[in-house]
Amino acid sequence: MTSDMSTVLDRIDQDLPGALGRLTDLLRIPSISTDPAHNADVAHAADWLVDELRGLGFDARKDETPGHPMVVAHGGAEDGPHLLFYGHYDVQPVDPLELWDSPPFEPRIEDTPDGKVIRARGASDDKGQLMTFIEACRAWLAAHGSLPVKLTFCLEGEEESGSPSLVPYLQANRDKLRADIALICDTTRYDADTPAITTMLRGLLGEEIIIHGPSRDLHSGMFGGAAINPARVLARILADLHDDQGRVTLPGFYDDVPELPEDIRAQWEGLGFDADAFLGSVGLKHPAGEQDRSALEMIWARPTCEINGMIAGYTGAGFKTVLPAQASAKISFRLVGRQNPLKLRAALREFVRARLPADCRVEFVEHGASPASVMQTSHPAFEAARRALSDEWPRPAAFIGSGGSIPIAGYFREVLGMDSMLIGFARDDDQIHSPNEKYDLDSFHRGIRSWARIIAAIAETPK
Amino acid sequence: MTSDMSTVLDRIDQDLPGALGRLTDLLRIPSISTDPAHNADVAHAADWLVDELRGLGFDARKDETPGHPMVVAHGGAEDGPHLLFYGHYDVQPVDPLELWDSPPFEPRIEDTPDGKVIRARGASDDKGQLMTFIEACRAWLAAHGSLPVKLTFCLEGEEESGSPSLVPYLQANRDKLRADIALICDTTRYDADTPAITTMLRGLLGEEIIIHGPSRDLHSGMFGGAAINPARVLARILADLHDDQGRVTLPGFYDDVPELPEDIRAQWEGLGFDADAFLGSVGLKHPAGEQDRSALEMIWARPTCEINGMIAGYTGAGFKTVLPAQASAKISFRLVGRQNPLKLRAALREFVRARLPADCRVEFVEHGASPASVMQTSHPAFEAARRALSDEWPRPAAFIGSGGSIPIAGYFREVLGMDSMLIGFARDDDQIHSPNEKYDLDSFHRGIRSWARIIAAIAETPK
Repeated sequence: MTSDMSTVLDRIDQDLPGALGRLTDLLRIPSISTDPAHNADVAHAADWLVDELRGLGFDARKDETPGHPMVVAHGGAEDGPHLLFYGHYDVQPVDPLELWDSPPFEPRIEDTPDGKVIRARGASDDKGQLMTFIEACRAWLAAHGSLPVKLTFCLEGEEESGSPSLVPYLQANRDKLRADIALICDTTRYDADTPAITTMLRGLLGEEIIIHGPSRDLHSGMFGGAAINPARVLARILADLHDDQGRVTLPGFYDDVPELPEDIRAQWEGLGFDADAFLGSVGLKHPAGEQDRSALEMIWARPTCEINGMIAGYTGAGFKTVLPAQASAKISFRLVGRQNPLKLRAALREFVRARLPADCRVEFVEHGASPASVMQTSHPAFEAARRALSDEWPRPAAFIGSGGSIPIAGYFREVLGMDSMLIGFARDDDQIHSPNEKYDLDSFHRGIRSWARIIAAIAETPK
Repeated sequence: MTSDMSTVLDRIDQDLPGALGRLTDLLRIPSISTDPAHNADVAHAADWLVDELRGLGFDARKDETPGHPMVVAHGGAEDGPHLLFYGHYDVQPVDPLELWDSPPFEPRIEDTPDGKVIRARGASDDKGQLMTFIEACRAWLAAHGSLPVKLTFCLEGEEESGSPSLVPYLQANRDKLRADIALICDTTRYDADTPAITTMLRGLLGEEIIIHGPSRDLHSGMFGGAAINPARVLARILADLHDDQGRVTLPGFYDDVPELPEDIRAQWEGLGFDADAFLGSVGLKHPAGEQDRSALEMIWARPTCEINGMIAGYTGAGFKTVLPAQASAKISFRLVGRQNPLKLRAALREFVRARLPADCRVEFVEHGASPASVMQTSHPAFEAARRALSDEWPRPAAFIGSGGSIPIAGYFREVLGMDSMLIGFARDDDQIHSPNEKYDLDSFHRGIRSWARIIAAIAETPK
């Protein structure tokens, strides 16, 4: 470790009580973005951050949007690598309030079997996480008077309400926001000891299929046998979407699905993923996807087709001998690699139409289409950040995948043309979006130290 | 025609205004059996019928049950064939009242493009129909002072509320009610010109299938691909229940399904059933059942398997990427011939279990099981009634099937050990159970004349 680095880390350790105090101040502001009654609180949190960033010497401002404001700040070195940091300062609602053991906006430090935690709404999602980065900057500035990288902050106030203003804001402010790479701090570590950089996010294609048959619901005694039953047609179509090996049968579905690169596969094998524990946590034992893939591949690196909902006919108590006029299903595909959601939507529609019997027609409703994000880990910042994280934590960091779809990374790619490094320190049991949300002090402390190291490591990469 | 018969028919024609007046009196009584506020009205209708039947010389009484009373009467010849006549004097509720063009319990004679009708709740279902039989008896008695058959009446007051007291009443009164054959007047003619005797009723097996997978609803990003999706499992099972020729694939399903007897097939072909019009009335064109069967066979003489309802996951507006913990379907089978509902329930459960992947379990909920009714048309009363109906109407009567399941015929077979002849004169457009119910005067008039002829024809058969 360089002495530059150890000075910063010492500073972080010494100032931890101060950092916790500042986080506590921010957590006291009930910035619930979905509830208009809290609009002033959301604005208050934005102002608080602008003041903090200005106090650290950044050129910070609160930009109004049609919704909640965006906090934007610029600063740092003129000639180092340019990083865009993203976090969000709004929080989820607190209902049901009666399930909280202490008031959600009165943060408390608590001892737990796993160590100390700070408990409050937003502690983990995302105020605690975004403050790890600000505190890392503070320590750098306190220790050395300057930062070794150029920095732009983009702190959102609408993440928990669907980010309606985000893309228009990015489009209108491309030049101010474009950087070499984005840092997004809104995810979890891989496990207690293992930090991670999420480099693969699955995309999502959502589609609703409505099969129409008879012009009205029929009596199954009077018409049953002669009239087409749309529920039977739908069941056949849905069943046809998988073969008996768990593969999706849509023609061309796997054309743009890459095999996992060997280096990534090696890292994942090193993680010691416990598939039995993962499935066991929800009462299951057997990975149900493609039978020649591991459970971890299934959720991080392989595409899926899932029925998210389906309904037809009478579904209340008891029984009605109705022959339904229509049947519908909401299905979604998780996408990987270069799978093209629009091409697959067309393939799905063709697949359904090819299976429509006479007397049925189909109606489709779109529910979103976003491609997978696969970061270019050859960018030197990725390896730099991985080394820095490995230095801080008990176990080496890995490039991991995520089964879910995190839209912000896609927006940064599409609108600003840059990749993102998703690095977060939260834990699976943080109860985000639920009562009694918490953030481990360990997450907070090591998170700050991690960013301090990452900033230094990226500063040393060729621009 | 014998002079005996023509005297009776003349009497009916002359007394039609009187018969209509009596029907009007009965229709004025709002005997809605499902609404406790009308309990006294239901009892009033029963008393009215007891008085009518006593006035005709029958030994009539109102038998109390735990629900609404049963009107029972005995009379007629001591030594002729013994007929049990069944009808019901309760009626459906009238909601929505605002859709009625005239008050439902103020019967009116109206001219329509199809002829005169009497409009009131219960005009067709079933007061008008049951009065056809009583008026036929009145005419016989007026013309000849006696009836040529032995008669028992069983008039129910709970048909529109599920007949809870019927089977216990039949069981407790077997000896008083058992006859050579039952006449049930609660069905329609085949068409405007063609009377019919329903001799085949499909049975019904209802079953709910609930597939359980994960212990809770999952996020399809986090678990999709690795966790089993019960909706996918259910879709596969439902799809497997039919082959691509529309046949049900349950092992042994067709074992006890007879081919249609040649004489019945010939009668059905003579009906000139218009499959295009039948399906066209509900927006369809192609019979969807077994592809080697006619549409009429499909609904009257072939067994079916239908999905009556299914549900899984999120089915509201928009989209949720949920991977559901369970998926369920309500399915029913219409049964024919000697298909055994209990054997088929067991076969279905075996079929489902054989398709359950690891990590899924299934729960079954029973929803009724009744075998088909196939009347022994070799009983001479059937041919006698068919000839009598053919004499009265423009076209010959046929033995037909019914796709639906009429429980009363099954109860008479099971509890009283006798077949039923289902003969009714209602029309498909009578709007039973709906606002503006009506009964054609033609139905009423020819219905009375039909029964007068049927009574005579059966009287001449060997006992």
